[in-house]
Amino acid sequence: MQTEEEFKDFILNGHLHYIPNVSIDCAIFGYHEYQLKLLLIRHRNLDSWSLPGGHIKRTEKLLEAANRNVKVRTGVDNLFLQQFKTFGDPGRIPFEKFDKKKWLEITGLASWEGNWLMDQTISVGFYAITDFSETILQTDISTGACAWFDIGSLPPLEFDHDEIVRDALYAMRLHLYHYPIGLNLLPEKFTLSEIHALYETLLGKKLDISNFPKKLIALKLLKKLDEKRSIGAHRSPHLYSFDREKYELALKEGLVLS
Amino acid sequence: MQTEEEFKDFILNGHLHYIPNVSIDCAIFGYHEYQLKLLLIRHRNLDSWSLPGGHIKRTEKLLEAANRNVKVRTGVDNLFLQQFKTFGDPGRIPFEKFDKKKWLEITGLASWEGNWLMDQTISVGFYAITDFSETILQTDISTGACAWFDIGSLPPLEFDHDEIVRDALYAMRLHLYHYPIGLNLLPEKFTLSEIHALYETLLGKKLDISNFPKKLIALKLLKKLDEKRSIGAHRSPHLYSFDREKYELALKEGLVLS
Repeated sequence: MQTEEEFKDFILNGHLHYIPNVSIDCAIFGYHEYQLKLLLIRHRNLDSWSLPGGHIKRTEKLLEAANRNVKVRTGVDNLFLQQFKTFGDPGRIPFEKFDKKKWLEITGLASWEGNWLMDQTISVGFYAITDFSETILQTDISTGACAWFDIGSLPPLEFDHDEIVRDALYAMRLHLYHYPIGLNLLPEKFTLSEIHALYETLLGKKLDISNFPKKLIALKLLKKLDEKRSIGAHRSPHLYSFDREKYELALKEGLVLS
Repeated sequence: MQTEEEFKDFILNGHLHYIPNVSIDCAIFGYHEYQLKLLLIRHRNLDSWSLPGGHIKRTEKLLEAANRNVKVRTGVDNLFLQQFKTFGDPGRIPFEKFDKKKWLEITGLASWEGNWLMDQTISVGFYAITDFSETILQTDISTGACAWFDIGSLPPLEFDHDEIVRDALYAMRLHLYHYPIGLNLLPEKFTLSEIHALYETLLGKKLDISNFPKKLIALKLLKKLDEKRSIGAHRSPHLYSFDREKYELALKEGLVLS
């Protein structure tokens, strides 16, 4: 949505193009050099921060809608994107707190009565992971600000988004051993130290490095290469890579350790 | 819904009491003595089987709606119930195939134009597990039939329900090592053979019994009791029980093996 006219049309007639009563919220995690961040936006006319998201076009599958919403904010297409939970609670969006008068002025509506955006919404939660140094953040007419925040110092969020972030983090950490989450966050060939640091950062805790690779190798997701990297006198650690074929399969079906 | 009058009112005015464009589908698994079954229903005026489900009341949280829908069919309250995935695809419900004429006769409507039930629906999938020998199946005015089917010989299902069942099974099997799913399916104290048989049946594959309990004991979900059961000459296997406290915690937060 680029123009004021398109924004008004979305508010007035969006239900013709988008499915009413359903939204998408995206917890977009960003990783780079031992830091984990979360992307937050500030809606026009709201004071506090929330997760980026949006509505589902009537012609879209859920994942397509999530992908479009993530791309609009980050400029990155086809991120690792995973649905993790749907949120529905009669009190999750406190319509009574909205400054409806201001919005009536902007839109030129006489009343919110019966408007599709002022009804209860169930929200489908997705999380994504990307390298935050490679994103180009974008705002638009409905989103005044967009920024990366350290995962350890998030501001209080609008609506039920604190809960959504907590559940997204939990799901992502659970999935670290079921989906090949690291693929786009590491170079093509990497050392054990590099993937160990990535996992520690994503999990937010220390991992015993001597036991660490066993699990990933047991999943056959990780391949030990017959190659070393020279990083100084007497230091040339083995290189590893992800197994692309297993990766594609795991993206579709997940992997179960048993 | 018990009367024809209530059923008509639901079709005409349901959107006032239920959230439009969103439904719930429940894969209710039944376990008893080494058998795994799935509960299926047949809607009035449809020839084939589908998953039980329904709509979300405007006053309900998602889990409450799922619990109500499961209780209506099985007579069992507060089952182990887990949300696993939400399904949204423009083609998931083929409205064009419906015998709309028959339904217009039943409801006395002049047209389906603008009716809340004839619009695109996103469906939130839950799975539940119960002992099928303890359920009392119930039909009603909109559900003509309701029955348990062996998981290995399911009929083809309506809509996208084959996909929902596949994903529910996958999620349940993944969760076997994250949630204490077995609690209500075994006696208070059980032998290793009993829980081993339960897990083999739910997973649909053989498990090495010598390695099997390690994982559950590592999760501290399972306690080895200082008690044995006498089942014959020279046969008195150790008894185990679930740890209730860990169980409650895991129900809320899940458990991550690391």
